[in-house]
Amino acid sequence: MRITAYFYLAAFLLPSVAVGAEGMWTLDNLPRAALQSDFGFQPDAAWVEKVQKSSVRLAGGCSGSFASPDGLVLTNHHCIWRCVEQLSTTEHNYMRDGFLARAHGDELQCPNTELNQLTAITDVTERVWAATEGQSGEAFVAAQRAEMSRIEQACAGDDPTVRCDVVTLYHGGLYHLYRYQRYDDVRLVWAPELKASLFGGDPDNFNFPRYSLDASVLRAWRDGKPAATPDHFSWNKAGAVEDELVFVTGHPGSTQRLLTVTQLELRRDLTLVDQLLYLAELRGLLNHYATLGDAQKLHSQYDILMVENSYKAIRGRLQALKDPAVFEFKRAEERMLRDWVAADPARIAEFGSAWDEIAQAQDAYRALHRRYTLIEQSRGFRGRLYSIARGLVRAADERQKPSEERLREYRDTALQSLAQNLLSPAPIHADYERLHLAWSLTKLREELGADDPLVRAALGNDSPADLARTLVEGTKLFDLDYRRALWEGGAEAVAASDDPLIAFVRRIDGEARAVRAQYENEVGAAERANQQRIARVLFELKGTDAYPDATFTLRLSYGQVRGWEEHDRKIGPFTVLAGAFERHTGADPFALPDSWFAARPQLDMDQPVNFVTTHDIIGGNSGSPVINRDAEVVGLVFDGNIHSLGGDYWYDQRLNRAVSVHSGLIIHALRHIYDAGELLRELGQ
Amino acid sequence: MRITAYFYLAAFLLPSVAVGAEGMWTLDNLPRAALQSDFGFQPDAAWVEKVQKSSVRLAGGCSGSFASPDGLVLTNHHCIWRCVEQLSTTEHNYMRDGFLARAHGDELQCPNTELNQLTAITDVTERVWAATEGQSGEAFVAAQRAEMSRIEQACAGDDPTVRCDVVTLYHGGLYHLYRYQRYDDVRLVWAPELKASLFGGDPDNFNFPRYSLDASVLRAWRDGKPAATPDHFSWNKAGAVEDELVFVTGHPGSTQRLLTVTQLELRRDLTLVDQLLYLAELRGLLNHYATLGDAQKLHSQYDILMVENSYKAIRGRLQALKDPAVFEFKRAEERMLRDWVAADPARIAEFGSAWDEIAQAQDAYRALHRRYTLIEQSRGFRGRLYSIARGLVRAADERQKPSEERLREYRDTALQSLAQNLLSPAPIHADYERLHLAWSLTKLREELGADDPLVRAALGNDSPADLARTLVEGTKLFDLDYRRALWEGGAEAVAASDDPLIAFVRRIDGEARAVRAQYENEVGAAERANQQRIARVLFELKGTDAYPDATFTLRLSYGQVRGWEEHDRKIGPFTVLAGAFERHTGADPFALPDSWFAARPQLDMDQPVNFVTTHDIIGGNSGSPVINRDAEVVGLVFDGNIHSLGGDYWYDQRLNRAVSVHSGLIIHALRHIYDAGELLRELGQ
Repeated sequence: MRITAYFYLAAFLLPSVAVGAEGMWTLDNLPRAALQSDFGFQPDAAWVEKVQKSSVRLAGGCSGSFASPDGLVLTNHHCIWRCVEQLSTTEHNYMRDGFLARAHGDELQCPNTELNQLTAITDVTERVWAATEGQSGEAFVAAQRAEMSRIEQACAGDDPTVRCDVVTLYHGGLYHLYRYQRYDDVRLVWAPELKASLFGGDPDNFNFPRYSLDASVLRAWRDGKPAATPDHFSWNKAGAVEDELVFVTGHPGSTQRLLTVTQLELRRDLTLVDQLLYLAELRGLLNHYATLGDAQKLHSQYDILMVENSYKAIRGRLQALKDPAVFEFKRAEERMLRDWVAADPARIAEFGSAWDEIAQAQDAYRALHRRYTLIEQSRGFRGRLYSIARGLVRAADERQKPSEERLREYRDTALQSLAQNLLSPAPIHADYERLHLAWSLTKLREELGADDPLVRAALGNDSPADLARTLVEGTKLFDLDYRRALWEGGAEAVAASDDPLIAFVRRIDGEARAVRAQYENEVGAAERANQQRIARVLFELKGTDAYPDATFTLRLSYGQVRGWEEHDRKIGPFTVLAGAFERHTGADPFALPDSWFAARPQLDMDQPVNFVTTHDIIGGNSGSPVINRDAEVVGLVFDGNIHSLGGDYWYDQRLNRAVSVHSGLIIHALRHIYDAGELLRELGQ
Repeated sequence: MRITAYFYLAAFLLPSVAVGAEGMWTLDNLPRAALQSDFGFQPDAAWVEKVQKSSVRLAGGCSGSFASPDGLVLTNHHCIWRCVEQLSTTEHNYMRDGFLARAHGDELQCPNTELNQLTAITDVTERVWAATEGQSGEAFVAAQRAEMSRIEQACAGDDPTVRCDVVTLYHGGLYHLYRYQRYDDVRLVWAPELKASLFGGDPDNFNFPRYSLDASVLRAWRDGKPAATPDHFSWNKAGAVEDELVFVTGHPGSTQRLLTVTQLELRRDLTLVDQLLYLAELRGLLNHYATLGDAQKLHSQYDILMVENSYKAIRGRLQALKDPAVFEFKRAEERMLRDWVAADPARIAEFGSAWDEIAQAQDAYRALHRRYTLIEQSRGFRGRLYSIARGLVRAADERQKPSEERLREYRDTALQSLAQNLLSPAPIHADYERLHLAWSLTKLREELGADDPLVRAALGNDSPADLARTLVEGTKLFDLDYRRALWEGGAEAVAASDDPLIAFVRRIDGEARAVRAQYENEVGAAERANQQRIARVLFELKGTDAYPDATFTLRLSYGQVRGWEEHDRKIGPFTVLAGAFERHTGADPFALPDSWFAARPQLDMDQPVNFVTTHDIIGGNSGSPVINRDAEVVGLVFDGNIHSLGGDYWYDQRLNRAVSVHSGLIIHALRHIYDAGELLRELGQ
């Protein structure tokens, strides 16, 4: 991949130059000048409010949009695979066969899905800055955590339908309080067969031309009834035409565009490769496990898809960071900021050391990396059972402290979501748990060495496989009542528990907490404090004409329906149904479902299937609606092309493309393939 | 890892400074001055000849030594795992249970093992240089190949007991003809249980302190009788003492110490990471397959051990190359050579462009890498069946040409070894073949994309799993007679074959050959021609006071029995039997075999087990004898410590250590654990 240094530089350093479609803009700071000058479009307040309130976030890591006044939500099929898998059995396999609720009563509750609808944004920058003024290291971490927790608590109160998050924008240049309506009763309405949503599978992932019906419909419920959602988008089945200005509203997860050179080097030289190696081995393991039978396939399918997706995405990012031109450019960019600082003694005093302090934090991280990822980030302890056990043990400890002194994920305002997770009725499969735990314990021993004290404390005289078997066979955490007793009984109940997995977590959690504290104090604090300083440099130069790195909060990206050129070959922006049938070989992942062949006589072979646009998106945008100037849905984002994988670090408007399902395909398929007349009527089609 | 720039520079550029134990010396060019001045030792011609003729090479990639006048050979257990696995069944599992032949008639023939004993070295540099004078690209490759083939053919004639190889030393600074006695009837005499040789397993691999009996005994046979091997080492059961001067004679496989900076960058940025990712996924796959049952475990065990060993070794190498100090040093080293060239117009004309031409070749390789490794190096087509099919198809094609025009591995002098390989009676397991072929075809499609013409030619409308099943179920290549018919029938028989796997190879081999030719002409030729030029610069500066990079030919390394310091902790050079029993947990890989516990009352707990020395060795040295000044065996090399993994690129005498089995342990174990009285008598013990 080649970067477009000119455009990128322009976006950050030359406020007066409008730059293609780059940018993931917060809704309170849209690029109005560019929209006006390039497209003659000026969104009014009503447009912005409608867009904001019609967009939703799936708390697990995706985006979506309300599609009816009664809570219907459009998102990708791949965003709800976990739910579909949890609702499936080998007899009723909705992953394989798809699902359609023909009446409200038939809708199936996702065991563990939370929707968030953004209702208000408040600037709290001054409060957070004031709280950490003059602090560093552990004191900085504690002060910031406490202040953010207080702000959130005051916002959410005890209302379980409200969620409040303090969001760090521009790496600390701004702190905003996001207030959400929270929906935790989310039900499955329609899902196609996996063969339809995943047509092309891993080989076609991040590629285009593409033929995928990666769409599904959920419904938000409230108090046992479909939720009232007056703010929602209507669908335009004609879609958008080539070059048309369209928008993506969604929740890009994270980008790294404002990182310093040393932070990027750490990723290039250590963390990305390490992640890839871990994922590659896990992938080999899971793919073989999946061949053993229908149950094994069903239980591992979601993880395999996620692992393969991450693997391909991270490999693309590594590839991007290996381009020497990228670092040349990043160095030039950084030099400009530093030169500006160096030109004035007051600036030197205030900002001068920021880059070097971040560099030191990177070195500190190198020494911590293995222990931190294996022990605290649980690469050495995989599986839902372990994750539940740790959540229960830590929650019991943390809830004895005041909210603002707790580890951030245990603050009062986070407990609703945490409990939903720990007490989810989703099935847990013993054999599959054992597979993950045994393998990850092997990695723990391999990476830290058999003589490491924590490894000895974890394994004792057992082999990883034996220990995993003992723990999974012995634990009572499969039992939802037992989990609830520990959750509600708190520290006392957990201390009294003789559950072997709870005991195992207690054996290692001291060290895990110590590693985390070391990470937060020696790395995290320095990064946050100094990125905040660099963000202020950027602000001095540019104000908020730059967009902040993605933070899994609502953003708007604008762009056009447009193909690209690849080695002198022109790739057009649309695919049509005829192409899907041509690409069908009959062998997975190139096998269309039987239902498509049954419906073939009724299908319009010219119906657009997927299309590409120039939007600047990233993981987390999956499920985002593509809307036109009239705020009508014309598509559903589900992927980027291969060139978009470098999007973590920059945006290349010549090549970077978002890939979406055409609105017309969803309607066409619901009508002619899935016979979903009632649903279509509710969607106003 | 930190490199010792001073010592390394010294070795290459300052002829008068003696440098620790660095160096893998050819036997015709020993570091006599250093041995004399540092140790007062001067090996005479008889000593050198005895050492040369008592050392053997296992053609599959290991070293060994003759141990009796009747052909006994000492090597590592891990060097013959493949043989032991091939001789094992789930009923008679010699991997698990060990093996001892109590009489000559009980010895079991390894299906596919070849021993080479070096008998003569002749300098043929002038001939090879003359043949390629003024050539480049394809012409260079063809001319060099033809001349080397002619030299080898004249040396070996039609004698199947002779093997002749032209060896490229100093990357073309010298070409030597190595003449070997070749033994292809090699039988298993003694092997311990895997629990004894692999005690500590992957966690302890490349680590020390260590407790491993990684030893085995083979016998070379000739004409149905034990071979007469008058040149052999005797064993000294007392071993060597701390600081004693000892020698390793063996066959280090390859080092990269003379590579240019751009060649090392290619490894750091592309090839090592790629290899690791491939191995990691394969490892996950195989480790899970091995859990399915005894047969699956037995069939995959050898591959798993090799994959894990490679993975750890390559990871260590990558780690070494990530140290920025290494590249600083390598750049300084290269600058010295280039400065010397730049100082004189005649030198500029002769050598000046060498480094840039190698840099261009690296860029050419980057573009070729995927196709070359997947298609020609068979990463996309794993398994013995495929390898046999390709060997048969290519041999049939190649043997129609004169020997010197063929691909190098099909020249007349290589056909004996090739036939032994293709016609090996070793069992082939259909299920296991399918596993490898299916997985690797998935990688092929993933890496090249589903629309690549070769991928389409290979897969057609099949999925990788379906195609692998069809090919493995349909092929007749399991049948040794069928293979022999194709081998002997040549091009006509292969053309007439309707075997699906033969047909599959024919479908893709044109492209594979094209990729290989492109690699050889655009990359290999430029590298060889220009490395030869750089080697000549080095020669002008230093003569042969430098040692050549390893080439899997006989080398002598000298060093001392010595521990090292690790983070202020002193690690002593010896471990003893008591430590092995202390490390035993009962769970693999920390479980000693039952036989050790049964014999425990007879064992001397102070018997040294393993020891470390300062020798400069690398993969391929496994099985090398460690000998004292009297040319007596005092140990058996089987590993290096973790710091030795950077040895591909430099030698760090402070930290780099070779790890060996103590001679006394082998004798002690044969006597008290394995009850091998007859074998001990033959060994003179």
